[in-house]
Amino acid sequence: MPRRTLFPVAVVVALMAGTAGIALAAMDEPIQPIAPAKVSNPGLVELGKKLFFDTRLSKSGFISCNSCHNLSMGGSDNLKTSIGHNWQKGPINAPTVLNSSLNVAQFWDGRALTLQDQAGGPIANPGEMAFTHTLAVTTLQSIPGYVAEFKAVFGTDKVSIEEVTKAIAAFEETLVTPNSRFDKWLMGDKGALTNAELEGYELFKDSGCTACHNGAAAGGNTFQKMGVVEPYKSSSPAEGRVAVTKEEADRFNFKVPTLRNVELTYPYFHDGEAATLAQAVDVMGRIQLGKRFTEPENAKIVAFLKTLTGDQPSFPLPILPPSSDKTPQPKPFD
Amino acid sequence: MPRRTLFPVAVVVALMAGTAGIALAAMDEPIQPIAPAKVSNPGLVELGKKLFFDTRLSKSGFISCNSCHNLSMGGSDNLKTSIGHNWQKGPINAPTVLNSSLNVAQFWDGRALTLQDQAGGPIANPGEMAFTHTLAVTTLQSIPGYVAEFKAVFGTDKVSIEEVTKAIAAFEETLVTPNSRFDKWLMGDKGALTNAELEGYELFKDSGCTACHNGAAAGGNTFQKMGVVEPYKSSSPAEGRVAVTKEEADRFNFKVPTLRNVELTYPYFHDGEAATLAQAVDVMGRIQLGKRFTEPENAKIVAFLKTLTGDQPSFPLPILPPSSDKTPQPKPFD
Repeated sequence: MPRRTLFPVAVVVALMAGTAGIALAAMDEPIQPIAPAKVSNPGLVELGKKLFFDTRLSKSGFISCNSCHNLSMGGSDNLKTSIGHNWQKGPINAPTVLNSSLNVAQFWDGRALTLQDQAGGPIANPGEMAFTHTLAVTTLQSIPGYVAEFKAVFGTDKVSIEEVTKAIAAFEETLVTPNSRFDKWLMGDKGALTNAELEGYELFKDSGCTACHNGAAAGGNTFQKMGVVEPYKSSSPAEGRVAVTKEEADRFNFKVPTLRNVELTYPYFHDGEAATLAQAVDVMGRIQLGKRFTEPENAKIVAFLKTLTGDQPSFPLPILPPSSDKTPQPKPFD
Repeated sequence: MPRRTLFPVAVVVALMAGTAGIALAAMDEPIQPIAPAKVSNPGLVELGKKLFFDTRLSKSGFISCNSCHNLSMGGSDNLKTSIGHNWQKGPINAPTVLNSSLNVAQFWDGRALTLQDQAGGPIANPGEMAFTHTLAVTTLQSIPGYVAEFKAVFGTDKVSIEEVTKAIAAFEETLVTPNSRFDKWLMGDKGALTNAELEGYELFKDSGCTACHNGAAAGGNTFQKMGVVEPYKSSSPAEGRVAVTKEEADRFNFKVPTLRNVELTYPYFHDGEAATLAQAVDVMGRIQLGKRFTEPENAKIVAFLKTLTGDQPSFPLPILPPSSDKTPQPKPFD
């Protein structure tokens, strides 16, 4: 049980630190500030940004990465489960792409180890973008604007799916959200939080939430069982990490979702069944910690959670290079 | 037949003008430069921009104005006909929203006189966003960030559909695309076009294309019959302006689409059946003008058409205000 070891450490360090300064203040806490993205290859990121918004990576020509990881909406689609090709109902809630570079692995069951691995998944998933990697590459290769951009970035005339996913991943690595009010508080601005928010944070820590929701992303760094104290009831077919490890002990183990920007990423849980933060906090308290938060306690924790909303990625809407006469036609209704 | 009257005027004026200067040079031509947008109420435009990108104006929570009028893709969806709620196949090709403020009316059949009238249509169309105006307003009214923004812009706590569509229209009015290479040429920069492009333009004028495709938008300002010289064969159910006027003479009369940014707004015609500009030019020549352009002629006209791509709207991707606990849940699968 990580919270038994981690939590006391955090408390002890916090007690030891006192008012010893900004850097130390941040270091003491189980949640750490998010660092702004450092871009080493801007051309690669710009290419990835275009691809992220490009519906031509789907069979229909209608669905892009941004359809389900909408950067206007916290990097999520705000739906219980996503809508895929031909309006198929997805099996799971789309996790936010924001701060996903901080995750230990990608997808709820961690089946992709890297953002690059993840990026290829939805393109070829028949229930999502329903394309193939081959067709995606053929399509991009037919678009002169992309060919020139791939050439400038990768130095080759030939587009490959590895390049496509590498570019998307490089863009996604920039989608961090520093500068939340909570981060300002962590960095020493003691006026950044209200008393109620601070009480919510103390309650969050004292209740053991930080056992799983810790680190820069306040989650995303471990797999944990959904339903520790009492079982979680869901009609969702998702069985969690057992699908990857084939170990029965991993059944209903899911990657702990980040709480960064959680105000924006409703609804909650892998099945999207918690519509509000109040519901999510209530369920988490009961099934993970065996606690029933009172209404005022719940409200304080929710108030704290809303301080985790950081600067959202800000960039001009990308303008995509037009198709050529050779570009395969999208097939939305086949 | 407008081209019999308008075209000679343009030619005569052009002949008279000679090299009389920039302003006159632009004035002489049947296609006029696009003026940049003047924003008189930035708050209204910003609100409209958010609404344009907001999927919560649809029943599913998945479709926004930008889904079919995608500003990364020339203000269109680049599909033959659009995809609506529950993956319904739309009856008609989505016209570009770019420069739509220059249109004589909105929709292919002109059934909305203003952008504001138009904006309410898709929200409540069961085949498109499948919502109702009442539910859209209830949803927005439940979102504190929107309520504050409507209050700042309209001075009232109560959101109305008129305010919603007014804001969307105000945003759409900014979506003009000045500064195309053709406009630069019109304004006196004679090096802005290649010889082939200029020959294409001359051929475009000499062939009578400017009879319908004239004005700042190179179209959008009249209704014309699709199939003047020979009938246009289509499996599309769209019957054109007769649906509005109930006059049989208006059957298959459609609003002439703008040729601005036509390189980006494929596929072409109300049924989206022309996949490429070469095909569109060929069909137009035959059925509207009784001309069969040779391949080199066709290529020159296409080269000219591609000079009509202007500065695409550039703005940071809007970040939408989050829903509250009171916001009605989207219903994608009902």
